[in-house]
Amino acid sequence: MADFNHIAKEFVQFYYKTFDENRAALAGLYRHNSMLTFEAQGIQGAEAIVEKLQSLPFQQIQHRTDTIDAQPSGEDGILVLVTGALLVGGEDKPMSFTQAFQLKSEASGFFVFNDVFRIVYPAA
Amino acid sequence: MADFNHIAKEFVQFYYKTFDENRAALAGLYRHNSMLTFEAQGIQGAEAIVEKLQSLPFQQIQHRTDTIDAQPSGEDGILVLVTGALLVGGEDKPMSFTQAFQLKSEASGFFVFNDVFRIVYPAA
Repeated sequence: MADFNHIAKEFVQFYYKTFDENRAALAGLYRHNSMLTFEAQGIQGAEAIVEKLQSLPFQQIQHRTDTIDAQPSGEDGILVLVTGALLVGGEDKPMSFTQAFQLKSEASGFFVFNDVFRIVYPAA
Repeated sequence: MADFNHIAKEFVQFYYKTFDENRAALAGLYRHNSMLTFEAQGIQGAEAIVEKLQSLPFQQIQHRTDTIDAQPSGEDGILVLVTGALLVGGEDKPMSFTQAFQLKSEASGFFVFNDVFRIVYPAA
């Protein structure tokens, strides 16, 4: 797991590019036991997760990642914490967000086991 | 692991209360294999982690937690994502932060295996 930083960066770039261009294709990154907590709403399973992401009330979105930190987490996992900004189509103000992923390895690579997303509002 | 939300909330309350009142006592929450990534700086082991936290250039700090999300992560882990604000002594403006923890169970309870901290700057 020496290249966990590299794996995390490639994953993050792929994730947000896919989110911004073709949300349906995110299904390939989740499995039946994957979990998403999106603004406190808990969802389980690839199908339900992608359904949720596709139901979000905007057609266009652009993510920018500002920081990507990764740590090995157990024998087959990588914890990734992202901070960044997103701009929803039709809005002119970006919002800060944070997202934590727990990636787990499988034969063909990594999938998203845990996924927690939060908008971060200005502190004061 | 039905009460992972409860465990996460109790941990988070205890963590920041201890951080704000007696940083040295955080040592009890980490083990020799624990990892902290603090603003991109990686540190391993309870002793080095607490040394780092104690060396931060402020005497007083107050954390406020705005959101605490938790998910079970494997058989013996809990992923926790926190967002909140912190106010450093002598400053008058709070800063937003995000912190991801991977808690792992041991005989006596849970310890912090992964810990990633980031200040979140306003998006624009």
